Amino acid sequence: MSLLVVGSVALDGIETPFGKVDKTIGGSGTYISFSSSYFAPKVNLVAIVGYDFPKEALAMLNQHGIDTSGVQIKEDRKSFFWKGKYYHDMNSRDTLVTELNVLADFDPIIPEKYQDCEYLMLGNLAPKTQQTVINRLRKRPKLIMMDTMNFWISTALEDLLQTLQMVDILSINDEEARQLSAEYSLLKAAKKILTMGPKYLIIKKGEHGALLFHKDQIFFTPALPLEDVFDPTGAGDTFAGGFIGYLAQTEDISFENMKRAVVYASAMASFCVGKFGTEGLIGLSQEAILNRVREFVDLVQFEIVMA
Amino acid sequence: MSLLVVGSVALDGIETPFGKVDKTIGGSGTYISFSSSYFAPKVNLVAIVGYDFPKEALAMLNQHGIDTSGVQIKEDRKSFFWKGKYYHDMNSRDTLVTELNVLADFDPIIPEKYQDCEYLMLGNLAPKTQQTVINRLRKRPKLIMMDTMNFWISTALEDLLQTLQMVDILSINDEEARQLSAEYSLLKAAKKILTMGPKYLIIKKGEHGALLFHKDQIFFTPALPLEDVFDPTGAGDTFAGGFIGYLAQTEDISFENMKRAVVYASAMASFCVGKFGTEGLIGLSQEAILNRVREFVDLVQFEIVMA
Repeated sequence: MSLLVVGSVALDGIETPFGKVDKTIGGSGTYISFSSSYFAPKVNLVAIVGYDFPKEALAMLNQHGIDTSGVQIKEDRKSFFWKGKYYHDMNSRDTLVTELNVLADFDPIIPEKYQDCEYLMLGNLAPKTQQTVINRLRKRPKLIMMDTMNFWISTALEDLLQTLQMVDILSINDEEARQLSAEYSLLKAAKKILTMGPKYLIIKKGEHGALLFHKDQIFFTPALPLEDVFDPTGAGDTFAGGFIGYLAQTEDISFENMKRAVVYASAMASFCVGKFGTEGLIGLSQEAILNRVREFVDLVQFEIVMA
Repeated sequence: MSLLVVGSVALDGIETPFGKVDKTIGGSGTYISFSSSYFAPKVNLVAIVGYDFPKEALAMLNQHGIDTSGVQIKEDRKSFFWKGKYYHDMNSRDTLVTELNVLADFDPIIPEKYQDCEYLMLGNLAPKTQQTVINRLRKRPKLIMMDTMNFWISTALEDLLQTLQMVDILSINDEEARQLSAEYSLLKAAKKILTMGPKYLIIKKGEHGALLFHKDQIFFTPALPLEDVFDPTGAGDTFAGGFIGYLAQTEDISFENMKRAVVYASAMASFCVGKFGTEGLIGLSQEAILNRVREFVDLVQFEIVMA
């Protein structure tokens, strides 16, 4: 089933203890699209870039089966640019530069041929923009998932709370869950957030894994222990893309299948952090992905016989 | 099979955001003994206390089937006292007071009836003292597990490296693993530590779970998400006690069984942190423990069919 991805497509500057890149392609829409392309039969991307966005990057997205005819190109503006620096523990980062550029007044136009989407993934964008996307779809998708970030919780809470009422799944990190709920315990935070609209909640904990909540059910998956984490940029978006891509591929939105989706999502995130920028997500084989999933099974599965 | 536990039996002062106790029983030997007593057929404890250690506490250990005839009582000295303060995230703490008292010149005397132990758990003590225990056992136990801490890595590294050569399993936390190996990646740290003597390594990550390493195998279990963590004191020792207690109960030291032991160990740790001091470990029913293990199974198990 076709998946519609709306998010930023950007240029990133990244500095980690292991290296530095001045300008590489990034943005939530980019990571989500690459990651989901390994699963979803069809990925359609709505985004906006400027004149400085490399044509080869769009071609690379196309090579992964991603339709980029919904990516607006503003010939007189620059692309969204973000620059960040990570320290040794890779769990925290400093944002050094944020230049909104084309993103400042992004009007998400949905091409007619994208209207039939069954799955919608709203990457991190202004909550109002996320609402506009949902309102412009004539038929409500079967499943709507959204990401957001601390910035919108701080500056556009009312809009965000409205958007939350319109979606099925919210994906955020642990700090954002705490901020949104005003609860320190993630369990209490999840209970509160599940009353705000979404029926499912994913809390991403970076190298410490991810939690999926639905009613009274909880599922946890760790991040795969890796010898080297080069660059965590995009890991959360890659996770989201793998998750919704797997659901779109299997056309099964039961909680049991969402557990599997979380495992595939974690596997995709492990590819992301192993290289700089989007590099780890380019040209993966199905075999490589399955092997990574097998590593997860070995890592967490145990046999227990209980009375 | 009988388990010999050697560790500190102490008085603790604890302050967390949820409360404060001036003096409660604690120490690695205490937590390990209580936790393992739910599994191991016989738990024998070697430790030392002063005149101020409450007789009711020893009686409570006895009520849990723990033999305390190996606990030396120094009528002219005070018990080991530790006081610590936790902050909101509960992952870091400040040590406010450490009074070694009786522990300063602890000579671990092994009662004759403890000589037949098959399982030995060396709680956090001076590495030389841990060596003395092993050397005083006429028959090497089937399995020797030890814990240690940053203090010994900093101040008695040579002794510690000698002790590591004598044991089968080392249990430490993530920061200690990094300090001991001089590697930031826990995977690299584990590889290095497994060349130092122990065939098995457990790295405890507090609320982020625990990893078990053996050769090229890794097993991970999360900590159970809890609404309230009141006091993390002793959680690592409780984990260790549950782990080795389960092995002693099942008499199976295969890696597959160690995975189950890690799950039981995590379940026990979740009881520990839910109340102050040792309170959460007192008088648990087998049913309560099994229910906690079931929660773990629900939390992490998924079904996946792979080609």
